[in-house]
Amino acid sequence: MRPSGRNLSELRPISIETGVTKHAEGSCLIKMGDTHVLCTATIEDRPPSFLKGTGLGWVTAEYGMLPRATNTRNRREAATGKQGGRTVEIQRLIGRALRAGVDRVALGERQIVVDCDVIQADGGTRCASITGGWVALRLAVNKLMKAGVCTSDPLLDHVAAISCGIYAGQPVCDLDYAEDSEAGTDGNFIMTGAGKLIEVQMSAEGATFSRGQMNELLDLAEAGVAELVKAQKAATE
Amino acid sequence: MRPSGRNLSELRPISIETGVTKHAEGSCLIKMGDTHVLCTATIEDRPPSFLKGTGLGWVTAEYGMLPRATNTRNRREAATGKQGGRTVEIQRLIGRALRAGVDRVALGERQIVVDCDVIQADGGTRCASITGGWVALRLAVNKLMKAGVCTSDPLLDHVAAISCGIYAGQPVCDLDYAEDSEAGTDGNFIMTGAGKLIEVQMSAEGATFSRGQMNELLDLAEAGVAELVKAQKAATE
Amino acid sequence: MRPSGRNLSELRPISIETGVTKHAEGSCLIKMGDTHVLCTATIEDRPPSFLKGTGLGWVTAEYGMLPRATNTRNRREAATGKQGGRTVEIQRLIGRALRAGVDRVALGERQIVVDCDVIQADGGTRCASITGGWVALRLAVNKLMKAGVCTSDPLLDHVAAISCGIYAGQPVCDLDYAEDSEAGTDGNFIMTGAGKLIEVQMSAEGATFSRGQMNELLDLAEAGVAELVKAQKAATE
Amino acid sequence: MRPSGRNLSELRPISIETGVTKHAEGSCLIKMGDTHVLCTATIEDRPPSFLKGTGLGWVTAEYGMLPRATNTRNRREAATGKQGGRTVEIQRLIGRALRAGVDRVALGERQIVVDCDVIQADGGTRCASITGGWVALRLAVNKLMKAGVCTSDPLLDHVAAISCGIYAGQPVCDLDYAEDSEAGTDGNFIMTGAGKLIEVQMSAEGATFSRGQMNELLDLAEAGVAELVKAQKAATE
Amino acid sequence: MRPSGRNLSELRPISIETGVTKHAEGSCLIKMGDTHVLCTATIEDRPPSFLKGTGLGWVTAEYGMLPRATNTRNRREAATGKQGGRTVEIQRLIGRALRAGVDRVALGERQIVVDCDVIQADGGTRCASITGGWVALRLAVNKLMKAGVCTSDPLLDHVAAISCGIYAGQPVCDLDYAEDSEAGTDGNFIMTGAGKLIEVQMSAEGATFSRGQMNELLDLAEAGVAELVKAQKAATE
Amino acid sequence: MRPSGRNLSELRPISIETGVTKHAEGSCLIKMGDTHVLCTATIEDRPPSFLKGTGLGWVTAEYGMLPRATNTRNRREAATGKQGGRTVEIQRLIGRALRAGVDRVALGERQIVVDCDVIQADGGTRCASITGGWVALRLAVNKLMKAGVCTSDPLLDHVAAISCGIYAGQPVCDLDYAEDSEAGTDGNFIMTGAGKLIEVQMSAEGATFSRGQMNELLDLAEAGVAELVKAQKAATE
Repeated sequence: MRPSGRNLSELRPISIETGVTKHAEGSCLIKMGDTHVLCTATIEDRPPSFLKGTGLGWVTAEYGMLPRATNTRNRREAATGKQGGRTVEIQRLIGRALRAGVDRVALGERQIVVDCDVIQADGGTRCASITGGWVALRLAVNKLMKAGVCTSDPLLDHVAAISCGIYAGQPVCDLDYAEDSEAGTDGNFIMTGAGKLIEVQMSAEGATFSRGQMNELLDLAEAGVAELVKAQKAATE
Repeated sequence: MRPSGRNLSELRPISIETGVTKHAEGSCLIKMGDTHVLCTATIEDRPPSFLKGTGLGWVTAEYGMLPRATNTRNRREAATGKQGGRTVEIQRLIGRALRAGVDRVALGERQIVVDCDVIQADGGTRCASITGGWVALRLAVNKLMKAGVCTSDPLLDHVAAISCGIYAGQPVCDLDYAEDSEAGTDGNFIMTGAGKLIEVQMSAEGATFSRGQMNELLDLAEAGVAELVKAQKAATE
Repeated sequence: MRPSGRNLSELRPISIETGVTKHAEGSCLIKMGDTHVLCTATIEDRPPSFLKGTGLGWVTAEYGMLPRATNTRNRREAATGKQGGRTVEIQRLIGRALRAGVDRVALGERQIVVDCDVIQADGGTRCASITGGWVALRLAVNKLMKAGVCTSDPLLDHVAAISCGIYAGQPVCDLDYAEDSEAGTDGNFIMTGAGKLIEVQMSAEGATFSRGQMNELLDLAEAGVAELVKAQKAATE
Repeated sequence: MRPSGRNLSELRPISIETGVTKHAEGSCLIKMGDTHVLCTATIEDRPPSFLKGTGLGWVTAEYGMLPRATNTRNRREAATGKQGGRTVEIQRLIGRALRAGVDRVALGERQIVVDCDVIQADGGTRCASITGGWVALRLAVNKLMKAGVCTSDPLLDHVAAISCGIYAGQPVCDLDYAEDSEAGTDGNFIMTGAGKLIEVQMSAEGATFSRGQMNELLDLAEAGVAELVKAQKAATE
Repeated sequence: MRPSGRNLSELRPISIETGVTKHAEGSCLIKMGDTHVLCTATIEDRPPSFLKGTGLGWVTAEYGMLPRATNTRNRREAATGKQGGRTVEIQRLIGRALRAGVDRVALGERQIVVDCDVIQADGGTRCASITGGWVALRLAVNKLMKAGVCTSDPLLDHVAAISCGIYAGQPVCDLDYAEDSEAGTDGNFIMTGAGKLIEVQMSAEGATFSRGQMNELLDLAEAGVAELVKAQKAATE
Repeated sequence: MRPSGRNLSELRPISIETGVTKHAEGSCLIKMGDTHVLCTATIEDRPPSFLKGTGLGWVTAEYGMLPRATNTRNRREAATGKQGGRTVEIQRLIGRALRAGVDRVALGERQIVVDCDVIQADGGTRCASITGGWVALRLAVNKLMKAGVCTSDPLLDHVAAISCGIYAGQPVCDLDYAEDSEAGTDGNFIMTGAGKLIEVQMSAEGATFSRGQMNELLDLAEAGVAELVKAQKAATE
């Protein structure tokens, strides 16, 4: 039995509210249950310096967490003087994931920065950031296309992510914090709308897992991502 | 004529929504027009080290701004490796302001950290942070009193703040960004519920002002703060 | 009775010695009683990058304190790896204050950096820095005018600053450390030679004050600044 | 055809030389072809502070690369003032991987720090660090057991890692730099001596992959890790 | 001919004014011609942590330079975020030099911090810092002895330093900036009052020197330090 | 009697293996007994910015130590966030020393960076870095000459360094760690192949020394450096 009473394959309630800040070119507040992430996309006319003159664009991401997004207060990274290892790891993951769905030639020599800031955390913040980050990116790209800056669509497909893991001996989908902190094995699965894999990160802190278990989690992830993609469509179309 | 069409003494629409995050001991989302600040109060059992053994409590504040809270994206302070001068100045101001309304003996040897994070900025973020920060503090202190940890109320009075300035030659109250960026003279006025002054910061970037103008702004500020205090009462009682 | 035996409105002995370092374009050692600040002005041919091509000049300030300027040794900021919040706040204040007296068109596209380094501290270091900083600035600008680089005087008026506060229930002028550390309410008042206000910063750490008290302090400040301006004139004419 | 002329499933020549520094409790120089990593294990009597009084031990890792380990010189991280995102990500991975093979009760309240420093890089440095790091760890733990400090073996099984990817449309094992920089999809596979999975990190920079491809890479990885474990045994038994 | 017209062995005018700040336990302003250094000594009751329980004391030094002590303004180290390599090198040298003259048993478990801040620079600031730093140290130690905290004198002998170099082919003593910036070979010679050597640092930027030249410089240094020691005596006795 | 049983003037066994990494333009692993330093030289087409347009080249050095190069593990400087004072001092010394043997006109507008990384430390790492760094530099310069980029040899002479000190009352050459940690007086002597001095750094931590002792150490150093130069020749010719 899951702490939330959900079925093994049941996601938390998904809500994606778009246009939540007046300044950003694209934005949404994504809620996966009690995990709330504010995602904004900023269009910058200039690409990063390593792409000058290549004709290619770039999508990058930054991740942050408000100090009291968690049960006990975390020290503000701006005050500690650097982004922690976990933050760096997550924002690199988000950036790679989103780029996998981007036609960088069609985007042209510009950069889109996706900021994912966790307002409230209850597990799965990096997955919610990817799923919500894609929505913010989609909305910003829509502006580029409407303005005629991009003529063919730079977004090749949806990108969404879900965590699955072995909780109390059973494979479960979309872990919340209570499950995540107990699960020996869990993974983040990033996929496209067409069901192709972009990134798989399975890890067993202080434990191991078999290929059979891995396949069970992949089955759950495929179904979960399909639901997320539906929610992305509802929010952006 | 003000850009927003407001009267000289008219505040922007005020909204204070409490209980907006499930983890913090006190929280609110304060909106002064398009300026939105998320305020949380965290109770820490231990006071800062310089107060150990004194019997006195402490209230401190931290301030942050999401990268795309503004019209053009600001670099994340966690990424630049330090809090900028403006951030440091503002969070010191918020902390001093809130402490002016606190009976530190009644609070006892503990610390309350008030985090003010600007979700969307349109001028007056430091004042909104103080006004909203007090609400979060009030709610956290209510928990201490309900739990019997504090027996007499550590909060002596309301604390709220408003900015006023000379815009297009006329004294106006609660400047938005369009006004703030044009005003030669402006000030932040922090007051108690009883109308006493806690802090006055008047400044004229590249200009000067007279005592007469100063008094006009103080008149506006007194009326403005009275309205804010009403909104604080509505939100917390 | 004030600890120093001074009258309520009496300033400490003022001394402004100019030309104290052979390298700087302008310099002075200002002494307000036991508070000693070395002020130097450096002319830089290039303005800060945000002013390139605008025809406007810039005046900025930096503030420092020798480790043993105070009663107990302070850790060197260069060793701690960053300027503390207090330092940042003060040097921003000095810069804003001095710029209020500058005609940035007449200055032309160049920058003057005013360094204020506290050799010995006994309260009121930021006010002494402004008053002495203006003298260093005046001397550096004199060189620009003598060399014909500036044809009309870029300095519009004197800028000087004084602190006043409520000590032992009474309004007093030019607080020394013994008074400053006891005063519930105090303020820094920055004014021009013509008696106009540039910046007012009144603050009550853990207390409040009334408009009546505020006016008493302003009266003291006006008289005090007038004396400082006289000393600036004696030093620079 | 692979650039090196290897078969699809063929690893580079493996060499593990132990006892390469006189100071460390365990050490080896692992060579996977032209990738050379010096691994040392340091036993510290005290566990990290979060484990005080729990009876549990800890294994952690740090990763570095000499400035000219690569084809063009990299700036020294000590000079840039922080460890880059890639470094942080890698050393967290090495630490997690090694801990998966550790019985932290048997280790007792102490910490073993495994340092992996890349002397020469030609692809696959993080996998070589894990495989070589385990050898250094094994040797250090042998000392603890010989000294009677640990009575049952804190190491549950071998831990080794291999990278596999899709190069020129074909699944290949143990990518070198020439392959790694071209491969759209690749992964790091960390396993135990018994063939259980500890961590799977598959990623497609700017591309996607199918479950079929994923299974092919897992097959290669299983065979590759088995060879590495043999080499670990030869080096430590 | 030296730029200043001095003889080859002639020092610049020496002035050592003591008691220049009211807070420090010992202080002086040393002037070697146009090189002016403010030296203060601070007594701290606790030794550095690595000496706890050993009965031994410690003397350490810090070095700084005001931004406009030099001909062109130097960026403030507190603003750049760290002490530069030159600063670190110099303050380590000053500390080592002073400790060579200290009986650390007689000093007892306490630390004396000597701050040397260059007010105006014209070559030889590190040597002036050592010579003046010793005077500040002497005065602070006198207080400890007068108070009976130390019963035997912790200072074994004078410590003073002079720079000598080959300028325009001739050995000269006490180089000023004009000479220092031209000299291919120069050195800093730190000696005791009894004429013993503490530290010799000879260096030839882009050149070499012979043992004969080295001996000529040592002869000059011996005579120069003897004069400095006389000045120290005059200032402290 | 020396701990190692060596004669007073006897160096440790010297080994210089060249070509130890495939990427660097020049490289060697120098071993002075148990002190092992990996030296690489990197040719950069552009000189440092302060030399743009001067026609002059530059040679600089960086120094590092693996965390477990020493008997107890040192914290990684990349993790502490800055290079320590000792590191900065050493790498400045290495750079100065090597430049003394360089004809910067013949080198032309380019930079060679010499990295010296201590793999295992047993005293004398800075001297070994200079001696080995010169070999790496020689090999890199050979490439420039072979390629016709430099037409006359930019290296004027050999540069090598040895430490000598007073151990147990006797002058000894090439101190190992056991001697170095006991020696009251020691020095680093950097010389050319022709026996000219480049830099002499003699220092007495908590002690003093005479000119007679200094001359004895210089005699030892001259003989020692001559041996090192022979080893450099054997390695590079």
